[in-house]
Amino acid sequence: AEFFAEDGSELILPFGGLRGRGAVKQDPPVVRDLYLSLEDLFYGCTKKIKISRRVMNEDGQTSTIRDKILTIDVQPGWKQGTRITFEKEGDQGPNVIPADITFVVQEKLHPRFKRDNDNLTYVAIIPLGKALIGCVVEVRTLDGRLLNIPINDIVDPKYCKVVPGEGMPLLQDPRRKGDLLIYFNICFPKKLPHDKKMLLKSALLS
Amino acid sequence: AEFFAEDGSELILPFGGLRGRGAVKQDPPVVRDLYLSLEDLFYGCTKKIKISRRVMNEDGQTSTIRDKILTIDVQPGWKQGTRITFEKEGDQGPNVIPADITFVVQEKLHPRFKRDNDNLTYVAIIPLGKALIGCVVEVRTLDGRLLNIPINDIVDPKYCKVVPGEGMPLLQDPRRKGDLLIYFNICFPKKLPHDKKMLLKSALLS
Repeated sequence: AEFFAEDGSELILPFGGLRGRGAVKQDPPVVRDLYLSLEDLFYGCTKKIKISRRVMNEDGQTSTIRDKILTIDVQPGWKQGTRITFEKEGDQGPNVIPADITFVVQEKLHPRFKRDNDNLTYVAIIPLGKALIGCVVEVRTLDGRLLNIPINDIVDPKYCKVVPGEGMPLLQDPRRKGDLLIYFNICFPKKLPHDKKMLLKSALLS
Repeated sequence: AEFFAEDGSELILPFGGLRGRGAVKQDPPVVRDLYLSLEDLFYGCTKKIKISRRVMNEDGQTSTIRDKILTIDVQPGWKQGTRITFEKEGDQGPNVIPADITFVVQEKLHPRFKRDNDNLTYVAIIPLGKALIGCVVEVRTLDGRLLNIPINDIVDPKYCKVVPGEGMPLLQDPRRKGDLLIYFNICFPKKLPHDKKMLLKSALLS
């Protein structure tokens, strides 16, 4: 993460330590995390990453540090753990095969959603009264639409409302989507006066 | 577990494989689980374990399989993972130091309680009405007493009632005890007729 610019679009990676070996061999890949937002993974995007690498000069003996831009075409539906490898883009040296550079997709935390494979989960906070009587849950989607989801069932702490097709795009066919799963955090009253307890007794215990 | 008799009080362990080595050395300890109920660990108890071991005859060359009883004095407050070692009680052989035998305490699952260090946790199942209005929770303790615990607070899904001194005995002083922690599984109604929803609306949403 320390390699990324503020907007996540560019970073500078110093790769070093591959010069001066006796035999021609390749070091293990240089692996770096690539943090992407759920929006990036929903729409797909292009990430340009600037690396700073040692390149051999024409004399075959001396070398120079040069910048290079690596371009990653993020596909809609990529998942945490997706690996993108640039072969032999590590430091050049007189007796080495440059290392591969591998990026591993990591999901940034999202303020509203958690991803569960192709599904998105959302937690709605509702008071106990609405959990029992019914309510409408508003959810702003990753592409900015406002969904109004009527809940007519009784919502208990394990209840889950499934909204089909409002999850993440499927990698094999991004026009198809996973589901949105709405879980509920039910707020109980902190105190109840006697008369309201009597009403609750009639409603729930008779 | 396969070594234990039905009542858990005796078991037969065949120890083998230590004879015929060239130099006198000791094999690593033989480690076996000792499953104990929460009642055993609450009161303490004595466990007699029959092992079947190879013992050298007086000629120093031949050996005989003999049974032996190992006695474990379980102390009140012992925890999962407590180790009891019997030194050199493994098979004898012409050129070996018999292995140690180590028992490791494992807690049997209990029908009512889970242990959390010195505390016990219990899950009470109550209907939503009682969670809001109040109730009395009955808990049968490990030593057979029936506790009646009044709950006057509003019980939400994260509520925990602490009953001091009704947990497990402390190893360093078994007269002192940990706490009993009561968690709640709140049963919501499956359906509500319109008139009861109106009562709930008055009680909870006005």
